[in-house]
Amino acid sequence: MILTDAIKAIRRQVADLHAELPRNELVVWTAGNVSARVPGADLLVIKPSGVRYDEITADNMVVTDLDGNLVDGELSPSSDTAAHAYVYKHLPRVGGVVHTHSTYATAWSARGEAIPCVLTMIADEFGGEIPVGPFALIGDDSIGRGIVETLEGHRSPAVLMRNHGVFTVGATAKAAVKAAVMCEDVARTVHISRQLGAPVPIPQPDIDALYHRYQHAYGQESTR
Amino acid sequence: MILTDAIKAIRRQVADLHAELPRNELVVWTAGNVSARVPGADLLVIKPSGVRYDEITADNMVVTDLDGNLVDGELSPSSDTAAHAYVYKHLPRVGGVVHTHSTYATAWSARGEAIPCVLTMIADEFGGEIPVGPFALIGDDSIGRGIVETLEGHRSPAVLMRNHGVFTVGATAKAAVKAAVMCEDVARTVHISRQLGAPVPIPQPDIDALYHRYQHAYGQESTR
Amino acid sequence: MILTDAIKAIRRQVADLHAELPRNELVVWTAGNVSARVPGADLLVIKPSGVRYDEITADNMVVTDLDGNLVDGELSPSSDTAAHAYVYKHLPRVGGVVHTHSTYATAWSARGEAIPCVLTMIADEFGGEIPVGPFALIGDDSIGRGIVETLEGHRSPAVLMRNHGVFTVGATAKAAVKAAVMCEDVARTVHISRQLGAPVPIPQPDIDALYHRYQHAYGQESTR
Amino acid sequence: MILTDAIKAIRRQVADLHAELPRNELVVWTAGNVSARVPGADLLVIKPSGVRYDEITADNMVVTDLDGNLVDGELSPSSDTAAHAYVYKHLPRVGGVVHTHSTYATAWSARGEAIPCVLTMIADEFGGEIPVGPFALIGDDSIGRGIVETLEGHRSPAVLMRNHGVFTVGATAKAAVKAAVMCEDVARTVHISRQLGAPVPIPQPDIDALYHRYQHAYGQESTR
Repeated sequence: MILTDAIKAIRRQVADLHAELPRNELVVWTAGNVSARVPGADLLVIKPSGVRYDEITADNMVVTDLDGNLVDGELSPSSDTAAHAYVYKHLPRVGGVVHTHSTYATAWSARGEAIPCVLTMIADEFGGEIPVGPFALIGDDSIGRGIVETLEGHRSPAVLMRNHGVFTVGATAKAAVKAAVMCEDVARTVHISRQLGAPVPIPQPDIDALYHRYQHAYGQESTR
Repeated sequence: MILTDAIKAIRRQVADLHAELPRNELVVWTAGNVSARVPGADLLVIKPSGVRYDEITADNMVVTDLDGNLVDGELSPSSDTAAHAYVYKHLPRVGGVVHTHSTYATAWSARGEAIPCVLTMIADEFGGEIPVGPFALIGDDSIGRGIVETLEGHRSPAVLMRNHGVFTVGATAKAAVKAAVMCEDVARTVHISRQLGAPVPIPQPDIDALYHRYQHAYGQESTR
Repeated sequence: MILTDAIKAIRRQVADLHAELPRNELVVWTAGNVSARVPGADLLVIKPSGVRYDEITADNMVVTDLDGNLVDGELSPSSDTAAHAYVYKHLPRVGGVVHTHSTYATAWSARGEAIPCVLTMIADEFGGEIPVGPFALIGDDSIGRGIVETLEGHRSPAVLMRNHGVFTVGATAKAAVKAAVMCEDVARTVHISRQLGAPVPIPQPDIDALYHRYQHAYGQESTR
Repeated sequence: MILTDAIKAIRRQVADLHAELPRNELVVWTAGNVSARVPGADLLVIKPSGVRYDEITADNMVVTDLDGNLVDGELSPSSDTAAHAYVYKHLPRVGGVVHTHSTYATAWSARGEAIPCVLTMIADEFGGEIPVGPFALIGDDSIGRGIVETLEGHRSPAVLMRNHGVFTVGATAKAAVKAAVMCEDVARTVHISRQLGAPVPIPQPDIDALYHRYQHAYGQESTR
């Protein structure tokens, strides 16, 4: 009963957060997806496969277990569900996952190149460079494993999966969406900066100071 | 009688799909057009020439035969009608055609350079590189012939016509619009990736695996 | 009496056409302006100076003579009025003028470099390269003279004024707005194409054929 | 009493001006902020920390003194408040301050490179190059001091803070927002121009003539 109400609320949140992806120009057509863990249960809520952004509703979001099997919903889950599920299974701190092919971040991923930490905003949100994960085919654990193995060694909530796109994580689905928006923004700014020369590096102690301050002092208590 | 109803429905679909072109930033002013084959008849429905996107209605779409002659409608057909008609005549599998001058795809076409398959999204949707067709003048069969001859040798539903723009095809007009949206998205991402170095190639067996999986397993049964 | 009615209608047209500039991302803040000649009178209608796009109405458009002196209206005319007036005075075929600082066209102008004719769309609308006009200070006839001297030697309805921005002309104000939209579109596409190599030139006879066809055969009779 | 009314009006202005930042694509998520001095009092009105743009209202704007201490409002002030306050304290002519991480301006700042004065629009609004300020950590006077020391030696109302973003100032908050919009526009245009070669410099006497004319003659008397 209580679980049913929680899932209903999470379906609404996940549906609403999907609207941020086109609004922030992170996706085209049906690409991209947001999921949220159902707290206290081995379940997640995610977008169904191949559905357009203007057709997304709380009701057509789907619920799967942490192996990606459909538990509730009338449509097939996103083809990226296995990757989301693997992340929730292996990173207990994660409450939300976002996947996009956002243009600039994906451009870095196609070269297999990490985004260097040359902006205070990168130090704030990502705590250092945004790392690259391995090339992995869809269809088994490869993508999920690549995400988890890469993020375990970094402060960054974002990973650039090679030749593919971006996955971001957060304590909540909203935090993961924020990381996806920020990742594309800094991917674009650093790309443009690099086009005409070399951005000035930020010394590691300054990166550390910015990261610790932002993680502990920014925003309203209630909106972190 | 039945044909009249079918044409009425297709006029509505074609008019509605035109709204995707400005929404996805594929066109400016009156450039660009979508057409659909009328199933079971040697007819197509297409945008009239020189009409603005906010003036498009189901009623002002025009019907032509597969030689591009006006059959029904009050306005002159698009000046690209001959090219669309040629495609329907020579590629029976095609139910929809889209033409745009979308920025990044047209930029590749101006250099006469194919878009290499360096993103999983390109492997999924295009099954390999997006090929370049010949330079061809408007006014006779040249453009249509260039499209058909290029697409016959490729999995790709998109062709970059040299110094001109993009034509995409699909089993339905909606599928052709999707291919046009995807083509511009990957043209942009690969362009940006290449600006700062060389994207990592994807091995051919992986391209094949991604293409076959996407063509057979993605989306909801009813929305393919 | 008749002139009053004509001016009222032109104020409405000019006000409406200004909405195309932000809609097509050609301007920021108050930059940019559209004017129209009043047929049969040595008068023009233009935007007032320093007014935001969402504050433009038919009523606050201003009327000046062809020396740029205010004839009717409550606000000061655009600071570019002298340039518009000079064009109407010296090019009787011109019924509309548009000025913008649109990004890509202005970027070419800052290098003093013409946009080469490497797209069929450039051949269609501009009939060859889009030429560069001289550097000229605001405050006297210099800008107007630079526009007229440059356009007299070209088919192009657009001129890139060095280190400044774009002026376009047309038989009507709508045609001049169309040229401004097209100019930015091709400035962007050719820029992007050139970033990764050399666009293939289009042979002069093909440029000529495309230009003559487009000028005589495109669009609906009534919408040219 | 009178001060209360003045603050109420300024809360409204500051809230409304924040809408210009996303409208002009200068910010993502909660980044960026606008403040205004309260005339005749050592107070300023600014955006609260971590609040989304669609949640901004006149009522949730906050009032601080010129040391950045909260005087009125229910939320914590922006984490950039100390920098704004420092500017008001040390530059009496300033009535408004804007901070953004707008893409192109921030890209120049990451290389520590000033934007050269190669467009008449830069001469008009900025009177010369747009200068770079020092790298400075958030948390004390460093950012405010860097802004003031840089702007004191320039005509420019904008400063590119290294590896960080842009601060702009104006006699009013509206003028500071205009400078922020213009700064990003010219940062983008000059960047694009430089990608394919060297923009032509504008001679210093011409820069001076353009700057003086624009500062004294442009716009309507009442809208400067």
